[in-house]
Amino acid sequence: MSLEDLQKIAPTSTDSADLKKYGKDWSMNFEANASAVVFPRSGEEVQQIVKWAIQSKTALVPSGGRTGLSSAATATEKEVVVSFEKMNAIIDFDPIDQVVTVQPGVITEDLHNFVEDKGYFFPIDLAAKGSCHIGGNVATNAGGLRVLRYGMMRDWVTGLKVVTGTGESLYLNKSLVKNATGYDFRNLFIGSEGTLGLITEVELRVTQKPALTRVTVLGLEELRHVTSVYQHFRQATQLSACEVFSEFAIQKVIDMHGLQRPFETRAPFYLLLETEHSQGEDESLLMEPFEACFAQGWISDGVISQSPLQAKSLWNLREFISESLSPLSPYRNDVSVRTSRIADFVVEIEEAYKQQYPDFEVAWFGHIGDGNLHIDILKPQSMDKTDFIKKCKQADHTLFSIVQKFEGSISAEHGVGLLKKDFLDRSRSTAEIQLMREIKKIFDPHHLMNPGKIFTIG
Amino acid sequence: MSLEDLQKIAPTSTDSADLKKYGKDWSMNFEANASAVVFPRSGEEVQQIVKWAIQSKTALVPSGGRTGLSSAATATEKEVVVSFEKMNAIIDFDPIDQVVTVQPGVITEDLHNFVEDKGYFFPIDLAAKGSCHIGGNVATNAGGLRVLRYGMMRDWVTGLKVVTGTGESLYLNKSLVKNATGYDFRNLFIGSEGTLGLITEVELRVTQKPALTRVTVLGLEELRHVTSVYQHFRQATQLSACEVFSEFAIQKVIDMHGLQRPFETRAPFYLLLETEHSQGEDESLLMEPFEACFAQGWISDGVISQSPLQAKSLWNLREFISESLSPLSPYRNDVSVRTSRIADFVVEIEEAYKQQYPDFEVAWFGHIGDGNLHIDILKPQSMDKTDFIKKCKQADHTLFSIVQKFEGSISAEHGVGLLKKDFLDRSRSTAEIQLMREIKKIFDPHHLMNPGKIFTIG
Repeated sequence: MSLEDLQKIAPTSTDSADLKKYGKDWSMNFEANASAVVFPRSGEEVQQIVKWAIQSKTALVPSGGRTGLSSAATATEKEVVVSFEKMNAIIDFDPIDQVVTVQPGVITEDLHNFVEDKGYFFPIDLAAKGSCHIGGNVATNAGGLRVLRYGMMRDWVTGLKVVTGTGESLYLNKSLVKNATGYDFRNLFIGSEGTLGLITEVELRVTQKPALTRVTVLGLEELRHVTSVYQHFRQATQLSACEVFSEFAIQKVIDMHGLQRPFETRAPFYLLLETEHSQGEDESLLMEPFEACFAQGWISDGVISQSPLQAKSLWNLREFISESLSPLSPYRNDVSVRTSRIADFVVEIEEAYKQQYPDFEVAWFGHIGDGNLHIDILKPQSMDKTDFIKKCKQADHTLFSIVQKFEGSISAEHGVGLLKKDFLDRSRSTAEIQLMREIKKIFDPHHLMNPGKIFTIG
Repeated sequence: MSLEDLQKIAPTSTDSADLKKYGKDWSMNFEANASAVVFPRSGEEVQQIVKWAIQSKTALVPSGGRTGLSSAATATEKEVVVSFEKMNAIIDFDPIDQVVTVQPGVITEDLHNFVEDKGYFFPIDLAAKGSCHIGGNVATNAGGLRVLRYGMMRDWVTGLKVVTGTGESLYLNKSLVKNATGYDFRNLFIGSEGTLGLITEVELRVTQKPALTRVTVLGLEELRHVTSVYQHFRQATQLSACEVFSEFAIQKVIDMHGLQRPFETRAPFYLLLETEHSQGEDESLLMEPFEACFAQGWISDGVISQSPLQAKSLWNLREFISESLSPLSPYRNDVSVRTSRIADFVVEIEEAYKQQYPDFEVAWFGHIGDGNLHIDILKPQSMDKTDFIKKCKQADHTLFSIVQKFEGSISAEHGVGLLKKDFLDRSRSTAEIQLMREIKKIFDPHHLMNPGKIFTIG
């Protein structure tokens, strides 16, 4: 079986620009080294591609919107990239089941718009939504901004069609709400980063859009009060997001985008809270926890959005952080612990960094209600880039040891890919990693499905 | 390794009354034939029991509240039963994580009460809640009455400690909200009916209790209108349950429990809707869909609860059905399809039964919003019991073929166990069943964890 045979199945490119473009994701750590890119247009073509791969002993790397940050969608070993770009049809919407059926290459934001036009709401919302694909969201179990209220991608997938590494096509769970018939393979595929097979169709639940949302931004003098404030608002309101960021991070956003400060008083940390309200409900519900937190001295100032426009511009303060930091060549990490431990966790990392890496400047931001913290280390201007990355990689050992001590996750929502596989044992036991290897062998006995990602077959 | 060695690990009984009691669940199809019952008190003891089982080549059957209906918790082959009755401690509650940690032997209703005392709500609610165990709820992925709004047990398990068939102890997901570190074994264990290992600790998410719930009961002239009525109420209200039952079923409840009819007008079918409301919200929200459905001629009469007491007594009409039918020796089935297909599905089964089994009297009831239907065939008084069961087993072939045609589930929430394993291929493909066998071999290479349940190792 040759590349010519592959070309007979679906459009295939070996053009060097395509190999470069489709050969990697947003992560910067590994260079693309693909042998070809194939663009299937249907589940049947995907199945034929897998059969071709088995016969020609060629490894496959699935590729969606290429917004991944852990090099799970990066071909470094002359693999053939399977791009889902041409499988971007919204197939069906059933208003009684409230289920939408899509091909994996549908862009997340296109799904949002389609569902909104039907009068419904799909709540998985992440910064990359304008580029990322639904298939990639499933393969990495995407999270994002509203996990606190709506859970992860896992919680919205009702059915899944996949082709395993044996070329077998499976239709998992068939969008049944109740289905007690043995092992749940749907959840095994969700978050498996393409290592068990390729996703060819996704069925997703949708829900009702909240009547009204408001955004509150608060200034905090000390990070350790963050959980108390979170807890007060959570009990008094229907909280749909709770984000934290530092003055350092917000200043970068203001500088780059010319946005207004949320209020005059500066604070070392800010908390952004999104709450859901019934139609016509005024902001009085928010005043009670606001005043209680103010009386405790936990917050120094605050603002509540008075219009959807103001809500959007307050959200921008948080959503633009990642982009605003990019010119500073940040070294990024994405970790999580149980929410109750997040304050102690941050304090311990801060102290360790201060002691071991006093010249690091760190931008902290994240999803407090999910125990999820993004840590961007910024390169000191005086430091050479290679030295900086080397130092950051050393610092990862410190960080991941603290994650392990707190029983946390070395990757909250960015996956493992190639980037973090050497640290997988900080979050998963040796026994678990061995079980993963054996499960991969069952679904992918020829070892052709995104090999080398998450873990190395021993 | 002998039974004496087992006794050194944990209290063990070979008393014939115990063997009979702990040897089976509520299902009536298989006789208990256990060799011993062991009562571990901790995860460490469970681990030692599994190691003993490996050395003595003894199969283990886990046993919770024994309310199962598919003989998954039935020992028919001289297995040792592992009862979790003594592992019934509530270990911890964290109000920031909103996570409660329990041993698997905690009775579901005890958990409800504990959580309510703390000011929270655990929504998995099923008829057997006074007897069933949390561990059993996890092992069978329990559903129940409020799945429409709150999902299945799967959606509430944040962490799981298990001992696999190799005697290895695993701590799965550690109650992390976000954790993108490879394959999700937590969801693989949920619903695996003890065939991969034993559950030793469960961490569960809790939520806020709704301020106010109301119950509406409606009379329907024709079953085919059920989806339209459901859809109208779902769009206008926060629906938390939607149950359907026949006049035949309700009459049995009224006869046995002396309950009042919901209203004077009799109808062939009834729909019970539970809705959630904010504090002080009156019933006007319910009037709009009520009047719309009435104007369409879909409903003939209805009642809305005016107090929690009335809500409870309307619920009783539905909750007592199963018990009220028991004296009539019903042959029970529990199947599901996508909600959008349920009306067509019922019509097709009814027609097939009428043609092939004209003397069957069938009580229909179920959870419409979940596509889940309970079908109780009642023994005609003139028919011999053995003949009746034989006929019902024949009828199962008809039923499950229709389930397969509608891409439904042969077991919506009762599991597969011994009872339905011969029909597993009506809901899962040959490839899927083979994958299940291979996965079991990984977690249970000695084939000692509840062997023979769900599927037969080929």
